[in-house]
Amino acid sequence: MNYQEAAAVLNETERTLRPYGHALGVMSYDAATAAPRNSAGRRGETMAFFSGIIHEKLTDPRFREALRTILDAGDEADARTRRRAEILMEESDETALVPAEEFRAYRMLLNEADAVWHRAKAENDWPAFAPCLERIVAYHRRNAARKNPAAHPYDVMLDKYEKGVTVAQLDPFFEALRRELTPVIQAVGEKPEPDVSFLRGHFPKHLQQRFSDRLMGLLGISRDDCSIGETEHPFTDSYGKHDVRITTHYHEDDVSLSMYSVIHEGGHALYELGTGDDLEGTCLSDIRSMGIHESQSRFYENYIGRSRAFCSALLPILREIFPEQTAGADAEKLYRAVNLAKPSLIRTQADELTYGMHVMIRYEIEKALMTGDLSVRDVPGEWNAMYKAYLGVDVPDDRRGCLQDSHWSFGGIGYFPGYALGSAYAAQMLDRMEREIDVWTPVGRGDLSPVTAWLRERIHRFGNLLRPDEVLRNALCAAFDPSYYTRYLVGKYSELYGL
Amino acid sequence: MNYQEAAAVLNETERTLRPYGHALGVMSYDAATAAPRNSAGRRGETMAFFSGIIHEKLTDPRFREALRTILDAGDEADARTRRRAEILMEESDETALVPAEEFRAYRMLLNEADAVWHRAKAENDWPAFAPCLERIVAYHRRNAARKNPAAHPYDVMLDKYEKGVTVAQLDPFFEALRRELTPVIQAVGEKPEPDVSFLRGHFPKHLQQRFSDRLMGLLGISRDDCSIGETEHPFTDSYGKHDVRITTHYHEDDVSLSMYSVIHEGGHALYELGTGDDLEGTCLSDIRSMGIHESQSRFYENYIGRSRAFCSALLPILREIFPEQTAGADAEKLYRAVNLAKPSLIRTQADELTYGMHVMIRYEIEKALMTGDLSVRDVPGEWNAMYKAYLGVDVPDDRRGCLQDSHWSFGGIGYFPGYALGSAYAAQMLDRMEREIDVWTPVGRGDLSPVTAWLRERIHRFGNLLRPDEVLRNALCAAFDPSYYTRYLVGKYSELYGL
Repeated sequence: MNYQEAAAVLNETERTLRPYGHALGVMSYDAATAAPRNSAGRRGETMAFFSGIIHEKLTDPRFREALRTILDAGDEADARTRRRAEILMEESDETALVPAEEFRAYRMLLNEADAVWHRAKAENDWPAFAPCLERIVAYHRRNAARKNPAAHPYDVMLDKYEKGVTVAQLDPFFEALRRELTPVIQAVGEKPEPDVSFLRGHFPKHLQQRFSDRLMGLLGISRDDCSIGETEHPFTDSYGKHDVRITTHYHEDDVSLSMYSVIHEGGHALYELGTGDDLEGTCLSDIRSMGIHESQSRFYENYIGRSRAFCSALLPILREIFPEQTAGADAEKLYRAVNLAKPSLIRTQADELTYGMHVMIRYEIEKALMTGDLSVRDVPGEWNAMYKAYLGVDVPDDRRGCLQDSHWSFGGIGYFPGYALGSAYAAQMLDRMEREIDVWTPVGRGDLSPVTAWLRERIHRFGNLLRPDEVLRNALCAAFDPSYYTRYLVGKYSELYGL
Repeated sequence: MNYQEAAAVLNETERTLRPYGHALGVMSYDAATAAPRNSAGRRGETMAFFSGIIHEKLTDPRFREALRTILDAGDEADARTRRRAEILMEESDETALVPAEEFRAYRMLLNEADAVWHRAKAENDWPAFAPCLERIVAYHRRNAARKNPAAHPYDVMLDKYEKGVTVAQLDPFFEALRRELTPVIQAVGEKPEPDVSFLRGHFPKHLQQRFSDRLMGLLGISRDDCSIGETEHPFTDSYGKHDVRITTHYHEDDVSLSMYSVIHEGGHALYELGTGDDLEGTCLSDIRSMGIHESQSRFYENYIGRSRAFCSALLPILREIFPEQTAGADAEKLYRAVNLAKPSLIRTQADELTYGMHVMIRYEIEKALMTGDLSVRDVPGEWNAMYKAYLGVDVPDDRRGCLQDSHWSFGGIGYFPGYALGSAYAAQMLDRMEREIDVWTPVGRGDLSPVTAWLRERIHRFGNLLRPDEVLRNALCAAFDPSYYTRYLVGKYSELYGL
């Protein structure tokens, strides 16, 4: 096969793969947002069927030969074609590890697990979900052994979500978080709590929906390209740069929860919306690094969204939509309220200071599940013991414990560390951004466009064209250094709580 | 090919066709409910790609040989296999008329037309939509000529939605409606209007959503099998008997509009939910007769939903959710209000008496479009003239005129007559039902289960196993006779308005 033929096979295979990925994406989104509860059966069959086709196309020998030809072509291959071949060869290798029947069955399992998890969470029924998770863990342990029997089995999972990240790097990362942050968490716990009463109370859902619309405006996201749905667990998905979906979950007793979900998912959406037009229609537009993706969501959620400047911009909107509830608030009170640091049960609702501990607990549990040191049936006990040990909280039920997150139900073992890594990337990005542009004056007036323009220029537009380490170097102009993150947190909370 | 081989090919082809139909259905639903406005482009490509695969599979010579073998097999073929072959052969014939490239392009056109129609309706911009409709009409005129150059081109369209129905039957049907109903419409117009003020006013959307939940309960529809979405134009779709979707549109100034949309679409949903379990997974579960489908929706909407008995059951729910607005209402006032007969602009909001005229106007326009006697650019003028002539109303803009319905945007030329036919079928069904069971005592207490059980037994469970004429004979125990419909309307409105 010559290079021209190989490029043609690549184009043709990518063209025929993308509709299946698109359909699977929309069907998953539909399952989470609109589909009735009993609909999983037939959807599982359709998804398994499509997965079978994807497996066949990705592992097709002629396709693999084409990829090999491009990767071996040297200068004849342009950089983009080479990068596409690199990405798809990785996917092909990954897929080829798993026999087609097992690949299809796994897709059905995930569809089932999603429905079972929703039910199990609602009914606080870990034993109902455990068999699904056991099968998911078994699938990944089997594949980790197939892929690289010499590696730590959790490294294989981490690599899926953030290329090159390993247990050997994350153990000291989380160790540093524990070491640096635990004393601050304890010191904060001895201080009086800020007033948060004006964010609690009754915030009717239809008014929060209106508030979400305003937040999207503040983030500069066009609703013509990005919709908001409602789900048990907030997420973002994208089917092209004019079809991004974020979701939220409204809690009528606390307006801050959906508010920060929208800003967090909005950060993901801005990344997707900002990928280069020239990457559309190829795998170069599919962002694969979850660490960098989470750096964007956590950047908007925390570094911007929980800043003094943003609180100034937010306050008039809050007061307009919820005049009674927020009657006594001012910008400084709002800033202190949204930065209440207090060990708690729910990761997505955690403050910045304790957030890393939530992720660390999941990291330790997943690592032990992957090595076999922990069995699925012992997860609740281990979870609860670690929440007690690291956060000092008693977990009252699995609904607010190990059933809270959707990730295991979609097979996302290895995803969580990206939240902490992303937060750490974002701290260093902010430092860099502050050296280059005036961040806070515009944010204080509710204008996030300079921030978004900087991130778009340094990160968003590259999509999957650059590798995560290249994107990061591009944004940071330096090697990644997690101490920016701990310094930021220690500084912020020392000032807030007068430590 | 022997019979066993043929049956295997049938099974295999059906198994591989269904996921594509499923995905196209969910993607269309998603487009109407959740997808952002700019998402049409990539969705169109994916849908066109899948349509190409469907075209290829349906017209595959080996598949057609298998169908032919089954249809020629005589007693060797069981009734169900034969019926499946019959349905799929029809589909194959229909598909084979159109070259694959044209078939794919039409799918893209419909996806585009949907987006264009939404925008054109919102912006009252007929010229924006007209080019899409021109291409849709041209496609169908071309295919009608290919299919049966001797037939009336509109007959070919009617046949898609209600097998065997022709212009030769519908011309006198609509002529009878005009003749019988016009004097009643005029006489009613001279009488004082009932008080409808307690159904107008302000009905916040979030309370109407709660009201919809109660209506679904009253209809006996499990939300685990059927969800409610929100769309510009209400519709029902089904992806299996545990995955039915209805949609509604909330108008905050009139609670009756969404109420009757939910009951109407709920009637469609009950039909889908009631198909036999034994038909699942084959084309026997896909109901193709739109006349019978509309008979079910119109049955619940009008014959049940606008009855005195149902109003008794409805009143306490309305008063519970909207106590202030409905303070002065009683069951008889509600009955009179929901049966206000008054020529109006919007078909889906029309009363039973004038409804047939709305359909007749669309019938005449579509017929003329298909023969070429009317060009797309002249539709607004023709539409407005007919609304003036038959309903005496002036159409203020195309948004409330020829842009109001979604049907043309999904290519559904020939669909509308099914609404009037379905209404007429339903009148005769009610007559038959009343002879066999006590309809009204349970309905008066809010128990629709005897009604639904009767319809399920006579109609729903058969899905597409029986032909429409067989289903109808089964339900009516007699030949279809449209005079039941006109007698019902004349009787009901004479009593209501004291004619």
